[in-house]
Amino acid sequence: MFTTQLDPAGQVLTLTTPNGPLRFHAMWLRDNSWDPETRAAGNGQRLLSLGELPADTHMTEAAASGDQITIRFAPEGKTVTYDGGWLIDNAYDRPTATERGWLGDGISTWDSGLMGNVPIGDFAQLSSDPDALGAWLEQVTRYGFGKVVNGPIEDGALFKVVDLFGYVRETNYGRHFEVRTEVNPTNLAFTGLGLQAHTDNPYRDPVPSVQVLYCLESSAAGGENMVVDGFAAARRLREEDPAAFDVLANHCARFEYAGEEGVCLQSRRPMIELAPDGEIIGLRFNNRSLAAVTDVPFDQMQAYYAAYRRLGEIIDDPAMEVTFRLEPGEGFVVDNTRVLHARKGYSGEGTRWLQGCYSDKDGLRSTFAALSRSRRQEAAE
Amino acid sequence: MFTTQLDPAGQVLTLTTPNGPLRFHAMWLRDNSWDPETRAAGNGQRLLSLGELPADTHMTEAAASGDQITIRFAPEGKTVTYDGGWLIDNAYDRPTATERGWLGDGISTWDSGLMGNVPIGDFAQLSSDPDALGAWLEQVTRYGFGKVVNGPIEDGALFKVVDLFGYVRETNYGRHFEVRTEVNPTNLAFTGLGLQAHTDNPYRDPVPSVQVLYCLESSAAGGENMVVDGFAAARRLREEDPAAFDVLANHCARFEYAGEEGVCLQSRRPMIELAPDGEIIGLRFNNRSLAAVTDVPFDQMQAYYAAYRRLGEIIDDPAMEVTFRLEPGEGFVVDNTRVLHARKGYSGEGTRWLQGCYSDKDGLRSTFAALSRSRRQEAAE
Repeated sequence: MFTTQLDPAGQVLTLTTPNGPLRFHAMWLRDNSWDPETRAAGNGQRLLSLGELPADTHMTEAAASGDQITIRFAPEGKTVTYDGGWLIDNAYDRPTATERGWLGDGISTWDSGLMGNVPIGDFAQLSSDPDALGAWLEQVTRYGFGKVVNGPIEDGALFKVVDLFGYVRETNYGRHFEVRTEVNPTNLAFTGLGLQAHTDNPYRDPVPSVQVLYCLESSAAGGENMVVDGFAAARRLREEDPAAFDVLANHCARFEYAGEEGVCLQSRRPMIELAPDGEIIGLRFNNRSLAAVTDVPFDQMQAYYAAYRRLGEIIDDPAMEVTFRLEPGEGFVVDNTRVLHARKGYSGEGTRWLQGCYSDKDGLRSTFAALSRSRRQEAAE
Repeated sequence: MFTTQLDPAGQVLTLTTPNGPLRFHAMWLRDNSWDPETRAAGNGQRLLSLGELPADTHMTEAAASGDQITIRFAPEGKTVTYDGGWLIDNAYDRPTATERGWLGDGISTWDSGLMGNVPIGDFAQLSSDPDALGAWLEQVTRYGFGKVVNGPIEDGALFKVVDLFGYVRETNYGRHFEVRTEVNPTNLAFTGLGLQAHTDNPYRDPVPSVQVLYCLESSAAGGENMVVDGFAAARRLREEDPAAFDVLANHCARFEYAGEEGVCLQSRRPMIELAPDGEIIGLRFNNRSLAAVTDVPFDQMQAYYAAYRRLGEIIDDPAMEVTFRLEPGEGFVVDNTRVLHARKGYSGEGTRWLQGCYSDKDGLRSTFAALSRSRRQEAAE
């Protein structure tokens, strides 16, 4: 099934696999040994630092037997066995992304067409059925948002939603905040104004990467919620005008919020954030808290503002938006590094009372990955 | 003091200032108006989205009077007055960074020479004296770490340290974690092993950007703490070998922790993280939780591992490290996106009991900025 070949210096293993030939370096292989001297048996953490492996590490023998690849390393004189499937899954001898704006596996962009297919989880089911929770988290990860319905109608119910997947990120706004009309609002969110689609708290670094909004009362006219896929908007901008995408990705914006005593939050981050290899990993878009942009060179500023305007037009395009109304006992979760949310204006008649809080994607992704792993293990047993 | 000049199209204002001429674009100026129709009076948030400003905004008049610059915008027919000092402070008509690896204002790198000058705050003073707290936070921001001494010796005292500047980031490890020897450790931190200098939780995205470690018992031999400035290490690598710096900044590493039931934390981020304009904004370094690196192209992997090795050697160089011993009632705060921490091995005799927790830089920086602002306001009154 596998055959092995070493180069004369013992630096490169060429493994012939069912997927074609794959090359691996001696040092990479040695650093990724899973034997009990290299990795702690219980928790899988690496016991050795790279400096403890000889700098002149090379391979003197390699052999395949069934799915197992055995390699002998010098000067340690150490023999390590690898699973061929693991090597295929972790191979790096492959073409790499060359275009900016690509998206990771398990992410699908969307527009208003998602309206009839919004990820919805029933609170009781999510709470009791790991498969239902796993399926809903898969969708939340894929689309960057999801609704919860039939939840409790009680003060603090939103924390029970967070408990499904992670932990509350407390901020100066508290462990949670009340979204209802206030007389002297510290934030425009606490008025009846319509709000352009935005990501929350771009002035915070690290930004809260998950937001939960949960409805307790909803008899006022208007106030519908709306979400827009920021990754889809960024990619549409790139298709229309790659230079516009680049100018927003290549320069930092600045954001600020200093609307209350003792608070002065400031950040310097691009509106479109890319990994060094061009993956889109974040969007920050919020007209209310954009500070003076001072990190764009003079000769790029006109293009920057034109790109920022066009991105806003795309975000405001009804073809991009999914609109829904939250009823009491319903809430939604958004990936705040990706999905923008908005609400339509509402008037003083009747009441509208939402509670909101922040959380982070590490917990959400970890819960999803752990559920997927345990499902795979069950399937394998 | 100021003179103004408009280009024929009304797109560019050239302002002659005590600092020389500075150019500003019409759209930038209009978007940065601070009049009450543009910005909410109480909280300073922008009331208009860019789409609500005419795309053909231009200037028809500009005049200076003392420190005030008045501009008339068409087609709105709107007159806005700017403070000349604000324009100078926010000018973008200036040379931009061309070298990778620069550092922001208020950041100073350090090595073992900082040993005699570690930022130390007295807990009672930090709690009662805003000037002392501001001065300590300035140092913590500058160096990325600081000690607290003479604090309470009681379970949970570390939360009182966090309360000085921010909020606890709860994770799967809890609101805090106990650092003492365990029999079946879920994490190597909970053993007596020495640990190479590292940043915590690089497998988490967003990474917890502040860590607090606080000592409650300390009679075991060994177990000294050590900190290393990761920004200094990255810049030293860059001085020695720019290509080594680049290969670590240009490609994502992968980190993983799945050492306990229900947890599978994974991230894909570079070891050296740069803003798009080359500012160093983060370091992730942790041999224990580095997963298989699969995003480095085959022909770069050897160089990548050589750079990773050299960065580790620099981090392990005693010339880079500041060592101290925590006594009961003492703790330290580190910027976990920058400063690595380590501890020397310790033996079973006596006890060593620390508590640790995570927090975030947004709160720390906001508290520092708000204290600085109120000090400036007092000085101006």
